[in-house]
Amino acid sequence: MARGRFITLEGGEGAGKSTQAKLLGTWLVAPERVAVLTREPGGSPGAEQIRALLVEGEPDRWDPIAEALLHYAARRDHLRRTIEPELALGRWVVCDRFIDSTMAYQGYGHGLDRDFIRGLERAVIGDLRPDLTLILDLPVELGLKRAAERRGTEARYEAMDRAFHERLRAGYRAIAAAEPDRCVLIDADAEPMVVQRRIRDTVRMRFSADFAA
Amino acid sequence: MARGRFITLEGGEGAGKSTQAKLLGTWLVAPERVAVLTREPGGSPGAEQIRALLVEGEPDRWDPIAEALLHYAARRDHLRRTIEPELALGRWVVCDRFIDSTMAYQGYGHGLDRDFIRGLERAVIGDLRPDLTLILDLPVELGLKRAAERRGTEARYEAMDRAFHERLRAGYRAIAAAEPDRCVLIDADAEPMVVQRRIRDTVRMRFSADFAA
Repeated sequence: MARGRFITLEGGEGAGKSTQAKLLGTWLVAPERVAVLTREPGGSPGAEQIRALLVEGEPDRWDPIAEALLHYAARRDHLRRTIEPELALGRWVVCDRFIDSTMAYQGYGHGLDRDFIRGLERAVIGDLRPDLTLILDLPVELGLKRAAERRGTEARYEAMDRAFHERLRAGYRAIAAAEPDRCVLIDADAEPMVVQRRIRDTVRMRFSADFAA
Repeated sequence: MARGRFITLEGGEGAGKSTQAKLLGTWLVAPERVAVLTREPGGSPGAEQIRALLVEGEPDRWDPIAEALLHYAARRDHLRRTIEPELALGRWVVCDRFIDSTMAYQGYGHGLDRDFIRGLERAVIGDLRPDLTLILDLPVELGLKRAAERRGTEARYEAMDRAFHERLRAGYRAIAAAEPDRCVLIDADAEPMVVQRRIRDTVRMRFSADFAA
């Protein structure tokens, strides 16, 4: 059986990652293809317990080092228990946030040493890099406005300062520029279905052999 | 105010670390000296929550990589919230397990890449190495016998195989040999008060200026 494809969605606050990941997952499902939607932090029972430590409590309860370590501990569990087994079964995995979130938030956003994060990445994911990473990009002001309207219970990042979100966006753009084979920047400043169409076109093009009629 | 001293106790199962740490903490307290007893994993509210993830559930719920990351996330919190502030206040900190436990258990015991663990150590503790590490050493068979008699609720490590415990002991001895300025191997094959006397002699000798009458 052919291995499944691993697609991750990334982006700052209010970029619409979760909505787009769901729409993409639904669209991918076909008679010949099973798609699994998952998210980080979380995606396996152990990782969801770590997620609770990360998203509950005061925003500054962990420093960036502890935060990066908790994200990577959760990621390791998620990878072993969910992502790797599903891919091995030939399923397509669509994941809402993955390695680039740690690099963007803890690395570019909070200034944690990026080589340290790369070391964690190497040790934890090994060769299992995503086949495609869609980075939803939009102006910070617009993203923060959308996020505030949503009024989620996990709004800890939204409360941080504007400069942080600008560093985050610049970080994501730098990641996309550094890894053009894996990452595609998607303009997310549009209606959800317009953004979704951009995503589907990108996926269809990237995996053209899988979509041959 | 002079910075406090940081003393850690290490060793395999049944070596008597917790008993010896308590006895040492009690002995250290003096009119001119406050001693704080703490432990790992744990020692701060956040680290204790991570501890719960580590000690509860199936022994194999985390792989060695996730386990090392969780230990280091907890350690980072413990360091920032407890160890560092206490030392800054001039208190002596006695800690039941620290960095060498991760190296011995996940590194030597489970075969996790030791350079990876060293990288975590550098990023997380920086310059804050213990002033003295007491490694309680005793034959594996004896330690396992003691541990089984104790019948603790956190007996997960005791359930592992004998070869694992031999690697652990060899690992601790290798650490002691590699860092003779920091580590002292204590023969723990004796009655608790005899072992404690060896520990107190070592502490008095190592910090002779602090014990000048």
